Amino acid sequence: MTTHSAFLLSSIIVFLIQYVESLAPATPTCNQESLSQSPPLTPTTRKVTNANDPWSNWNAGKSGNWDSANSGDSWATKPESAAGQKNSASNNWEAAGAFGHPQAYQGPESPEELSAAADDDDWDDDWDDPKSTSPQYLGYKESEPSEAGGPQRGNTRGAAMKLPLNKFPGFAKPGMEQYLLAKQLVKPKEKISIIVGDYGPMWVYPTSSFDCVVADPKKGSKMYGLKSYIEYQLTCTNTNRSVNHRYKHFDWLYERLLVKFGLAIPIPSLPDKQVTGRFEEEFIKMRMERLQAWMSRMCRHPVVSESEVFQQFLNFRDEKEWKTGKRKAEKDEIVGLMVFSTMEPEAPDLDMIEIEQKCDAVGRFTKSMDDGVKELLTVGQEHWKRCTGPLPKEYQKIGKALQSLALVFSTSGYQGESDLNEAITEAGKTYEEIANLVAEQPRKDLHFLMETNHEYKGFLGCFPDIIGAHKGVIEKVKESDKLVATSKITPQDKQNMVKRVSTMAYALQAEMNHFHSNRIYDYNSVIRLYLEQQAQFYETIAQKLRQALGRFPVM
Amino acid sequence: MTTHSAFLLSSIIVFLIQYVESLAPATPTCNQESLSQSPPLTPTTRKVTNANDPWSNWNAGKSGNWDSANSGDSWATKPESAAGQKNSASNNWEAAGAFGHPQAYQGPESPEELSAAADDDDWDDDWDDPKSTSPQYLGYKESEPSEAGGPQRGNTRGAAMKLPLNKFPGFAKPGMEQYLLAKQLVKPKEKISIIVGDYGPMWVYPTSSFDCVVADPKKGSKMYGLKSYIEYQLTCTNTNRSVNHRYKHFDWLYERLLVKFGLAIPIPSLPDKQVTGRFEEEFIKMRMERLQAWMSRMCRHPVVSESEVFQQFLNFRDEKEWKTGKRKAEKDEIVGLMVFSTMEPEAPDLDMIEIEQKCDAVGRFTKSMDDGVKELLTVGQEHWKRCTGPLPKEYQKIGKALQSLALVFSTSGYQGESDLNEAITEAGKTYEEIANLVAEQPRKDLHFLMETNHEYKGFLGCFPDIIGAHKGVIEKVKESDKLVATSKITPQDKQNMVKRVSTMAYALQAEMNHFHSNRIYDYNSVIRLYLEQQAQFYETIAQKLRQALGRFPVM
Repeated sequence: MTTHSAFLLSSIIVFLIQYVESLAPATPTCNQESLSQSPPLTPTTRKVTNANDPWSNWNAGKSGNWDSANSGDSWATKPESAAGQKNSASNNWEAAGAFGHPQAYQGPESPEELSAAADDDDWDDDWDDPKSTSPQYLGYKESEPSEAGGPQRGNTRGAAMKLPLNKFPGFAKPGMEQYLLAKQLVKPKEKISIIVGDYGPMWVYPTSSFDCVVADPKKGSKMYGLKSYIEYQLTCTNTNRSVNHRYKHFDWLYERLLVKFGLAIPIPSLPDKQVTGRFEEEFIKMRMERLQAWMSRMCRHPVVSESEVFQQFLNFRDEKEWKTGKRKAEKDEIVGLMVFSTMEPEAPDLDMIEIEQKCDAVGRFTKSMDDGVKELLTVGQEHWKRCTGPLPKEYQKIGKALQSLALVFSTSGYQGESDLNEAITEAGKTYEEIANLVAEQPRKDLHFLMETNHEYKGFLGCFPDIIGAHKGVIEKVKESDKLVATSKITPQDKQNMVKRVSTMAYALQAEMNHFHSNRIYDYNSVIRLYLEQQAQFYETIAQKLRQALGRFPVM
Repeated sequence: MTTHSAFLLSSIIVFLIQYVESLAPATPTCNQESLSQSPPLTPTTRKVTNANDPWSNWNAGKSGNWDSANSGDSWATKPESAAGQKNSASNNWEAAGAFGHPQAYQGPESPEELSAAADDDDWDDDWDDPKSTSPQYLGYKESEPSEAGGPQRGNTRGAAMKLPLNKFPGFAKPGMEQYLLAKQLVKPKEKISIIVGDYGPMWVYPTSSFDCVVADPKKGSKMYGLKSYIEYQLTCTNTNRSVNHRYKHFDWLYERLLVKFGLAIPIPSLPDKQVTGRFEEEFIKMRMERLQAWMSRMCRHPVVSESEVFQQFLNFRDEKEWKTGKRKAEKDEIVGLMVFSTMEPEAPDLDMIEIEQKCDAVGRFTKSMDDGVKELLTVGQEHWKRCTGPLPKEYQKIGKALQSLALVFSTSGYQGESDLNEAITEAGKTYEEIANLVAEQPRKDLHFLMETNHEYKGFLGCFPDIIGAHKGVIEKVKESDKLVATSKITPQDKQNMVKRVSTMAYALQAEMNHFHSNRIYDYNSVIRLYLEQQAQFYETIAQKLRQALGRFPVM
């Protein structure tokens, strides 16, 4: 068989597989699960997390002066083009999406590579279990080419996120009415306590914390080697047991967490999906680093880390247990606003004025911090470009110019200047070394500052939804007197509503306290690291210059 | 008298003075001196030193492969626009002329200031002694507006510089025939010896050297305060006596030295004439620094420093002695090629092959070094711009972004983070300090590297004329057999010619050895200074960063 006919044959096989897959949604037995259990808003919500400014859709409250003043300007426009360009390997940090670190890693840019890699997309890959291939995924794949239309996606999402404020359709129904008005809330096993500590309301932290080490990326393949993927090994520090997961499994977990906790706890998005260069060493390393950061953060969260879906993701014993757990998680009904029904603050109810003030304060702070984080990211991106682009080039030119001059000098025919010429040559080489140091440095310091800020940008991008949910509920409770007057609800219903919105307020404060303590730790660590590395960097340069200086003859 | 009428009156006085001055050339008694003594090529030669590529006019020899290869390209084009833009306060280093240090000093740029200052031009100012107002100066002034036409001026100059190779018209006649064929050379008092030392032919250095300190710039005025100028105090280190000189006096000295020694010794040009901002403190400081560098270099030259014109410039006792010396210098006939007639090498004559090889070697070296120096200047200019422009702006932005973030953090309402926020604020301020350090640094190191290279660019720009003169004479001697055969000259004449071209070759080598020893000293000093300052700079930054780091709480 010639190479050409082998290629033809494999192309036909790929086509047939794709064709069978495309028929799958029409086969109820194959898709029963995903059709019924996957909440319809999830994939859309997920995909646009970085696509559009999450804050720009939040105008329910009109409570802060920054909302109307900024939402149409820099705040709204800055991340607009993110999704549209996120796979174009652009040099623009923003354009590369929340986790796009373009200078740190850029995929191949040639059109050939792009089109070749497009067939190999991560979410083009079906699930290992073909039955769970959901129409949403196919739908998402189909809409992929139009992803440049950020605003449309943003609108879709905006609509999706407003649904819970009216009536949440579909199976799971994590709607506002359900939470506020249900006569008796479900009493699930998974009770989430909120206590009041020195810093105010707080989650109850487990007595022993754990982390999860993401390591050992391995290339796997299936369908007789026609489809390849990277599998990472996850090892829990408490059990020391390992499980393997692909990126798409992380993506599944992210979606489950978002659906379940997304209105109470900011769930930062995963590192971006990547079309090109998925098997390049540097990309794999970078993705692993980011998956590690994401997992560690989830492990540190007292509510997320203790949740069944998270525990199951890390601790399944075999393929069967993983699939069972997966199906169970997808059937979970305690999602959306209903998650608050599992929360029990051990404190007296708050009054409405206080609730509203606390909510507004969180809105103001997270908005301001988002501004600050974005400013730092913009500045950092600019600095990264300079440090890896023009600046080292300039040092290289200085180095070359000095060496050229020394070379000219050596042709003078004048005696006794070889010491000087060697010294100038060495000085020139030193500037070439400095060029390399300058170009490499951002990976040693700015990289971590940027990564931390990107993580926080991800967190902060979740707050408009969270605050939107709180404010929606607050508005509903405010209107409840009218409903009592018109006998649409009973006074007891109203009392329940106030109690439940108070629970939400406690949850928000508990989460904010968790957020603040992490923020303080993270920024302290990362700025210290940055300053330490910067100081070392300048010391190294000074040392090299002194060394070069020492070679010059004293006249 | 109102302010308005005072202004009118002074305007009328200025007009009358200018009118009288414009009539001056028509009055023989007033201009006798300058009409007869000023060599006609001088002002033109002077003005275009930076205007056009001096090398591009030198194609007599065709001896190096670089001549034809480069003269039309970067070599010829680079400095082309220098004169055209030199007064436009452009940001371009090249455009600002050989000594234009645009980032170090920029004159006022508003059109009002430009036109106001134009009336006040240095060489618009007449001489203190009105009698010596030379038509050349007026002529130069008139051609001022067309200075943008660099090439035309270059052509004029090219013609002027080729004249000595044919027949030099006018009173001074420093022509080739005169030098090569005069039966008996003048035996002037000012004999210039060339000895052969360890490094080959060399000038005889005076037993005690001296320097001249240029200091104490003072604003003077004349014509009832209508014309102002700056006068510098020059103090010789050997006599400790002082004289005062204005820039135009330096310019006069430069022209005398160029006319007298310009075919034997590279006389670097003075800092550029400046139309605008002549009375601004920073400009005066910078011009003084450059006049100082120029004077020190002239003082270090064993031939120039011992010459009558130079000594007289520094040591006149009163106004009368200065004027007498000035007139005498202008009458000097030992100029151009004739200066070689005062030189006596204490060594056997060289043969023609060796003479030509030595001359070619000098041509190659100076051309290569000119390339190297220009490369370093280009790179340095680019680096200067970055260090004073975008780079500090970026550090400032980093500083501001950190401070903004700390400010946001301080609104969190979370307890116990004030230490962190103060530390971040301090880190931000540190980056603002670093921004200032970065912006200030080029004045501390790059400035001197640039100044030295500019001086050398000035030197090297003189070599095309010097080598052109040598090659012209060599060609003439090569043709001399034909002249002997046709009895146009005698065999004795030919022997004299060989002897005289040998003298020129010795002079060239003596000058090159002087040049090389200075070059080695200068580049050693300036690169050492640069590296030392750079090392200190990076050490300071590292120190500041460590200080900022020390303020962070350890968690």
